[in-house]
Amino acid sequence: MPPTTTRNTPVIKDVARLAGVSVPTVSRYLNGTARVSDDKREKIAQAIKLLGYQPSFVARALANKVMDSVTMLTSLSTFWATTQINSGVESAARDKGFLFGVTSLDGISDSELESTVGRVMSANPAGVIVSESDEIAIQAMRLIPKDVPMVLVGGSRGDAPYQVMPSERAGGRCVTEHLLGLGHQNVVHVHRAEGPNNNTRTLGWRDAMAAAGLPANRSYQISEHLEDSRELGRRLAHDPSVTALFAGNDETAIALIRGLRDEGKRVPQDVSVAGYNDQLFSMIWEPALTTYSQNFVELGRAAFDMLYAQIEAKRAGQMAPEPQCRIIEGELIVRESTAAPRD
Amino acid sequence: MPPTTTRNTPVIKDVARLAGVSVPTVSRYLNGTARVSDDKREKIAQAIKLLGYQPSFVARALANKVMDSVTMLTSLSTFWATTQINSGVESAARDKGFLFGVTSLDGISDSELESTVGRVMSANPAGVIVSESDEIAIQAMRLIPKDVPMVLVGGSRGDAPYQVMPSERAGGRCVTEHLLGLGHQNVVHVHRAEGPNNNTRTLGWRDAMAAAGLPANRSYQISEHLEDSRELGRRLAHDPSVTALFAGNDETAIALIRGLRDEGKRVPQDVSVAGYNDQLFSMIWEPALTTYSQNFVELGRAAFDMLYAQIEAKRAGQMAPEPQCRIIEGELIVRESTAAPRD
Repeated sequence: MPPTTTRNTPVIKDVARLAGVSVPTVSRYLNGTARVSDDKREKIAQAIKLLGYQPSFVARALANKVMDSVTMLTSLSTFWATTQINSGVESAARDKGFLFGVTSLDGISDSELESTVGRVMSANPAGVIVSESDEIAIQAMRLIPKDVPMVLVGGSRGDAPYQVMPSERAGGRCVTEHLLGLGHQNVVHVHRAEGPNNNTRTLGWRDAMAAAGLPANRSYQISEHLEDSRELGRRLAHDPSVTALFAGNDETAIALIRGLRDEGKRVPQDVSVAGYNDQLFSMIWEPALTTYSQNFVELGRAAFDMLYAQIEAKRAGQMAPEPQCRIIEGELIVRESTAAPRD
Repeated sequence: MPPTTTRNTPVIKDVARLAGVSVPTVSRYLNGTARVSDDKREKIAQAIKLLGYQPSFVARALANKVMDSVTMLTSLSTFWATTQINSGVESAARDKGFLFGVTSLDGISDSELESTVGRVMSANPAGVIVSESDEIAIQAMRLIPKDVPMVLVGGSRGDAPYQVMPSERAGGRCVTEHLLGLGHQNVVHVHRAEGPNNNTRTLGWRDAMAAAGLPANRSYQISEHLEDSRELGRRLAHDPSVTALFAGNDETAIALIRGLRDEGKRVPQDVSVAGYNDQLFSMIWEPALTTYSQNFVELGRAAFDMLYAQIEAKRAGQMAPEPQCRIIEGELIVRESTAAPRD
């Protein structure tokens, strides 16, 4: 007599039977790969709850050859702009049923880069988005096999066949021209280290100065430690030729303002200060910050859309889409921290 | 006569020959799975460059059964604390050679949750870290198969066998006690929506009030739009009984200060305001913000370490580690925005 098998663990068939639907329908519900009517969804959900059914994800994974995932390779991974871009990619990817992974390139050496990219590729992602913030990201991009769909966010125009770019250089020019337009004779630029590309805020500052026939001869590179920017603000407070500052990001701007005030200067009456990014606190800061707003979440979504078009074409056996470069525009937000010079 | 094969694409054997090392050594170098001496690393790197060798990642992936990856399931994914925790997990994971993925639970419905977790599990991660910020995260945790290593970040003590918790409740109590200790008769609490757990900043505020024999009867829940907090600050400026505010995060605190000032109140002379998180700008704000500093990056690293111990035990066929709950302490940072009441 064969042994009696007592099956305590409910299986997908039990769910289907109780819900009064077919096994493939339960499967579609669980995979989220196709539409299941609201009516059936509810019945299946109730059956799963009643039975305490737990889907065998791992078993399914082994049967499942295509892992729909996209990976982001990024440096400066805790910077505000980076987290916003990632969030845009993630939400667009999820809308299409893709998993989203991030691998940070922060602090890895040249010799570790190859194995890092190797590990990413060994997970066989459907596509990769590289966010260019420094030289290591550009190197990483070159290691990605040519047959893997890829989009570069940022970089210089032409760095990759598929590219989504913020209007960084135009933005830097726009902020500088705003300050010059108010009547300032010089605009001092304060910035963190920038990527090795030709689309930076700093180059935009140079463009605007050149167009106005002024030498772009005063800029300071500072660390991400805000105390350094505050200290610089204190120093600049004693230089009467400094009437307008363009900070490469909002945090640097508010730290400069604090330093100017430490030494008794008023903003914008004595010195105008503009930032960049339009972070949440910029409108709340006192004085509210003039800044440049770049929609980084939209940038991330656009990057995924461009990647998805490549993935779709590849899977359908069609030609890859035409190489393309999409620029996401930002806008100048004039608030209280900039004004005409006193005389 | 057999056809002559012209091989243009260099293979791993060519790299090994040129570098004067064995094929397995090149393989170890590429996988990053084991140490290769600096001397050999350099020779291999040179050979790869000279030959223009591109490793066949995808081919290796197919031969490679174990995908070393960990996935983070998180809500409130663009909040500052979340990005810091993710960054800590990512860096600790990378140190151990693991890929890192994030799947956001923001805005997904109950009915989408099962298929979302299903997709995550179908990628067969070595382990999962769930970051509890709301009810959906707790539901997600319950869908993860029991045999998959898992760590919960946050939640109520006991919500999961392996747990890393910030000292949120103790922190909220600490800030409130600081304000009461300065002589304030009441502390008004302003907070965003909090998780459904028993370790929140708001409960810490209640604890401190109860311990001082005071009713915890004035709190306001506000949105993440800072204009709402500023408007609340304006309203509270006209209530002379309000002398101390404890804001659940630094951004809310600076928006409240701005609102109080709009109506002519001085901080801290008229009203003390404390924040929470110690974000970068807190020390730069004028007045510099009294706040509670929680090292969220460390929290993320601790979560990965706890996960890694489970993964190692599972792979070695050993018993799982003892269930554990680790609490990561923070500290009160007293700056300029809090002082004794005027009389």
